[in-house]
Amino acid sequence: MEEKTIEREVIYQGKVFDVEKHVVSLPNGNTSVRELVYHNGAVAIVAFNEAGELLVVEQYRKAFEQMSIEIPAGKLEKGEEPIECARRELEEETGYSAGKMTHLFDFYGAPGFCSERVHIYEASEMVAGDMNLDEDEFLNVGSLSLEQALGMISDGKIVDAKTIMAIQHWHINTLK
Amino acid sequence: MEEKTIEREVIYQGKVFDVEKHVVSLPNGNTSVRELVYHNGAVAIVAFNEAGELLVVEQYRKAFEQMSIEIPAGKLEKGEEPIECARRELEEETGYSAGKMTHLFDFYGAPGFCSERVHIYEASEMVAGDMNLDEDEFLNVGSLSLEQALGMISDGKIVDAKTIMAIQHWHINTLK
Repeated sequence: MEEKTIEREVIYQGKVFDVEKHVVSLPNGNTSVRELVYHNGAVAIVAFNEAGELLVVEQYRKAFEQMSIEIPAGKLEKGEEPIECARRELEEETGYSAGKMTHLFDFYGAPGFCSERVHIYEASEMVAGDMNLDEDEFLNVGSLSLEQALGMISDGKIVDAKTIMAIQHWHINTLK
Repeated sequence: MEEKTIEREVIYQGKVFDVEKHVVSLPNGNTSVRELVYHNGAVAIVAFNEAGELLVVEQYRKAFEQMSIEIPAGKLEKGEEPIECARRELEEETGYSAGKMTHLFDFYGAPGFCSERVHIYEASEMVAGDMNLDEDEFLNVGSLSLEQALGMISDGKIVDAKTIMAIQHWHINTLK
């Protein structure tokens, strides 16, 4: 079922992603075109505060022109280990450092055209500290009870894939 | 916290997505650049066969050069209602038609740069029929027990966001 690239055109080389257009051979011998977004990958962190509430950050998302409530996350730097990135992003965005980071699973959020693989970790042994945001990063930090979080998925106030996965993971652990 | 567009450059207009680069104003008065992928949106369907197993399709994903096991899904056509798209895609990809489609929630899989909103539905009152794939679509249809599905998330054999969300949703319903 593999789709071999016959022709490759680089359309854009950006800071966050590159865009390419490939002509590929199909299993039936025909060819087709695949438009592809290449991204270096990211991490996301499921972390709880002293009250047992899920840490979330609220920020403006230009792609859909709305504020979005999400678990802490960030892009992998070149050559950076996902687990180190998870420690760094948690600390930068929330001020908390985690004594322990446990890998949960990885996912692709838009597998039809985008190579971004997101590595999700669960933080534990948390120690509070100071936030340290990137220059162009503006966000509000908060926390949610499970009941609040589930209500916000139902109401459409939480619409971010990794955050929905984190909340469902949490819900499963409370029901088990 | 809104980021107003000051300058907008169209980089690519494709079949599946467009790419733009915006210069935006930040809350502190500075400007920054946002690289954006505009996509028309998609649907995904949580559906079960007569044996109570989750319907999945396996297909090649060029963006990460691997076979991927995912719940049925597809892109919205221009002006198409998400629920109609869900009925159409379920039938095209699996042959099943659903007497009832219940909206679960919507999500953005890559909110940092991509506008693709995915609408997830749960199908019920299922009637089996014949598949009807697009010309360039090659996929294997199958089904998974909850135990198999959970094992495939742990093993990294299922790495698609919508499919992980569907399996977690199913797991929650069995535990409640």
